[in-house]
Amino acid sequence: MAPKPAPRPLPNVLLISLIPVASWFVTRPLLSPSPPLPALFASVGFSIFAFLAALYLVPALGPTFIKANLKGKDLLKVYSDPIPESQGLVCASIYILLLILFIPFPFSNSVASLPESGTTLEGLQGVASLHHELSVYLSSLLSLLMATILGFLDDVFDIRWRHKVPIPVIAAIPLLMVYYAEGGNTHVVIPLPFRRFFGVLVNLGPLYYVYMSLLSTFTTNSINILAGINGSEVSQALIIALSVILNDLLYLPWPIGFRIPLHLLGGQAEVEVGGAWHAGMAYGSSELVARHLFSLYFMLPLVGVCLGFMYHNWYPARAFPGDTLCYVTGMAFSVVGIQGHFSKTLLLFFLPQIFNFVLSCPQLFGLVPCPRHRVPRFDPDTNLLHPSKALFLRPPSKLASLVLRVFSSLGLTELTIHPNNGTILEATNLTILNFLLVRLGPMTEKRLVQVLMAVQVAGSVLAFSVRYGLANLVYDGDRR
Amino acid sequence: MAPKPAPRPLPNVLLISLIPVASWFVTRPLLSPSPPLPALFASVGFSIFAFLAALYLVPALGPTFIKANLKGKDLLKVYSDPIPESQGLVCASIYILLLILFIPFPFSNSVASLPESGTTLEGLQGVASLHHELSVYLSSLLSLLMATILGFLDDVFDIRWRHKVPIPVIAAIPLLMVYYAEGGNTHVVIPLPFRRFFGVLVNLGPLYYVYMSLLSTFTTNSINILAGINGSEVSQALIIALSVILNDLLYLPWPIGFRIPLHLLGGQAEVEVGGAWHAGMAYGSSELVARHLFSLYFMLPLVGVCLGFMYHNWYPARAFPGDTLCYVTGMAFSVVGIQGHFSKTLLLFFLPQIFNFVLSCPQLFGLVPCPRHRVPRFDPDTNLLHPSKALFLRPPSKLASLVLRVFSSLGLTELTIHPNNGTILEATNLTILNFLLVRLGPMTEKRLVQVLMAVQVAGSVLAFSVRYGLANLVYDGDRR
Repeated sequence: MAPKPAPRPLPNVLLISLIPVASWFVTRPLLSPSPPLPALFASVGFSIFAFLAALYLVPALGPTFIKANLKGKDLLKVYSDPIPESQGLVCASIYILLLILFIPFPFSNSVASLPESGTTLEGLQGVASLHHELSVYLSSLLSLLMATILGFLDDVFDIRWRHKVPIPVIAAIPLLMVYYAEGGNTHVVIPLPFRRFFGVLVNLGPLYYVYMSLLSTFTTNSINILAGINGSEVSQALIIALSVILNDLLYLPWPIGFRIPLHLLGGQAEVEVGGAWHAGMAYGSSELVARHLFSLYFMLPLVGVCLGFMYHNWYPARAFPGDTLCYVTGMAFSVVGIQGHFSKTLLLFFLPQIFNFVLSCPQLFGLVPCPRHRVPRFDPDTNLLHPSKALFLRPPSKLASLVLRVFSSLGLTELTIHPNNGTILEATNLTILNFLLVRLGPMTEKRLVQVLMAVQVAGSVLAFSVRYGLANLVYDGDRR
Repeated sequence: MAPKPAPRPLPNVLLISLIPVASWFVTRPLLSPSPPLPALFASVGFSIFAFLAALYLVPALGPTFIKANLKGKDLLKVYSDPIPESQGLVCASIYILLLILFIPFPFSNSVASLPESGTTLEGLQGVASLHHELSVYLSSLLSLLMATILGFLDDVFDIRWRHKVPIPVIAAIPLLMVYYAEGGNTHVVIPLPFRRFFGVLVNLGPLYYVYMSLLSTFTTNSINILAGINGSEVSQALIIALSVILNDLLYLPWPIGFRIPLHLLGGQAEVEVGGAWHAGMAYGSSELVARHLFSLYFMLPLVGVCLGFMYHNWYPARAFPGDTLCYVTGMAFSVVGIQGHFSKTLLLFFLPQIFNFVLSCPQLFGLVPCPRHRVPRFDPDTNLLHPSKALFLRPPSKLASLVLRVFSSLGLTELTIHPNNGTILEATNLTILNFLLVRLGPMTEKRLVQVLMAVQVAGSVLAFSVRYGLANLVYDGDRR
């Protein structure tokens, strides 16, 4: 039996060269003259520190995790050495601790160099608004921290998935409570075709809170069920976070102007981004700038920890994320979607997850048998992954047969049919990973995660086209 | 071998009778006419729910904890059945979740029925102050949540005590960051005899943050090291919390007036408390009322969970608190001491802990050998506890001998002396529990925890005498 691969080497040159860079970014806002968006500089610095901390602490704490029985066997390998599990806890701890240390940069009067007048570019309009933003920021941290605890408890107590689906709702409670206490906006903008019935704005009231809870349940669980191969969870989180960052950057004031040729995507007009310190696509709205800055503060360090962790979680994995990583990243996306008021755009970045969820529904809701693990089957001789299968011990119900035949005709699953009576004996498990293997044929685990990442990137490209191309057809510029 | 005692019975009549009472308290602020301190009503209601939740969830989750290997053997019993350990996690989760659900009551415009004018009794002076108070409240919750995580990680990873002493500082970071971002007061009032040198107020600046970190380190660890017998941790927390509540109540506006005969305690004048809706000892200062209300919001539900947990942790214990309970209760005391600006008064309630800490110093700092457990020794034949002893494998150093002989002459420890050369062979372990056994003779575990509680109560009585009697000698009314 081949032994577990040795720990990945840690290039010390990276540490030595990045620490001064990160330190410069963190101290830059404190130096005079302060840059236009001082807290963003600090955020970039903290993100580099987050990357370095994850890169070095994840392997350093591995043996401690194994000793505390937080370990797992890699199901898709020939060796069976224990791999430290739940190391998303390390990532989450670094992430949240840095977000806490970051507090004085955007929220302290002295550091944030509060605008006396004129510098409304900062997006913070005064002391009262600063208090308000700090409350919102702290409630987001509380939700992230609760997601971390709940994810870790899930890892320690090994909660069954049916029981754990609603868990993210608990973690979202601080968000909702502060949203309520602060008199948060519960209005939604109605798409153009429906305005004749509902008007421009509709107050969803309590339904808005239900929507926010469902959003956090979805972002958390959808990453958690698209799991099972080395690097799958963290690469999804990484690409979604990068997409959110790209979207945020469009709304920042940039010293350069450029145009996005939206007519290529079907848009009516070109979108002009930037202009000398005008607020990008926010068109001067300091509120929009503030929202997207807020989002960046959460997304940049998330990219940092995800990159650092991915180095060790990449095939063949030296560390597993556990549910903790899925919970904390999922909650981070909900936080920025809710507090930044771009939850619809956010959901567009979850296209592969939505596809995987819809595909999984027959198994999740008990129509088709659901084995404990739905990861692809590993063939140790060829080192290739094949689609894993769900076995029908009893003949499937009529509804299940119908669903599976429809899925099969769409190429989503492969069925094994009894040669005589035509009943379904087996179906490949209904996940995007098995779907990719059905469509593209057996491949190595490393190639499969690369394909998955390509799908995620393609999803984001599509998302941007829809958001900035097609959305003009159903929404005007009136976004509140 | 005698089996472990059965789970304590849960009287359903308590559940049935207390739920309507708690519900009334929670809904009362929403009914018109709203009571003078609406959020306090809700807090009392939530505290009753906290009590019930701890009472029922602790035994219900016991088997889950044992299954997840969170279990311990009771060292001072004849049976060796596993007892669920770290169940302070259940208490902490209930406590923090209820504190989060409580947010709208004091901090939402609609529920808190913000004063248009006149109702400054509420202690909340408007929207800006409300935002500020919410930030402070949320940062306190973050610190409590971090203390919970760190305590639980300590239980799971079994961190050595030398490494874990500074851990509470990490949990205090959110408190300190928000204190800084909100431009918190770092001035201290100088006692009268020193005012000629320093003036009335001194700005400690960064030292004030060091003081706050040290305070949270002390409150957390001092409860953690006064542990080892059934009910010791939770009873300390309970009595300290009740003392803080009693102190808070002195500052609330009461519809009745009464006098405290302070001349009996050596005070100059009687203290008049209350008067028709005048703010107790706050003498009309709505800021003082707000601080002590804030403290009550944290202390009342803490008493609830502690009472509920104590029912199961009482001799013979069916559940162990773990480090989690010590961390979260210790942090809760730091939170109210820091945010309520009565940290000196708070420390007075820790007299037995301070005594235990000073007594422990020779062992904590390596002067005297420190065994893994310093709990008293159990004699299974008589069912009595005797002082446990530290054995000198090498003769003690001159300094250690001196310290131990001084302690011995003060009656704090009992030494075993070599009959010929007079060197110290053994000393009873330097904890308050062993001290009590040395002074009062062997007793049962149940009696020892009762004596410990009596000591804690006596400490609080002394604390109140010092605070409201002697403090007048070194401070005037000028408290900021």
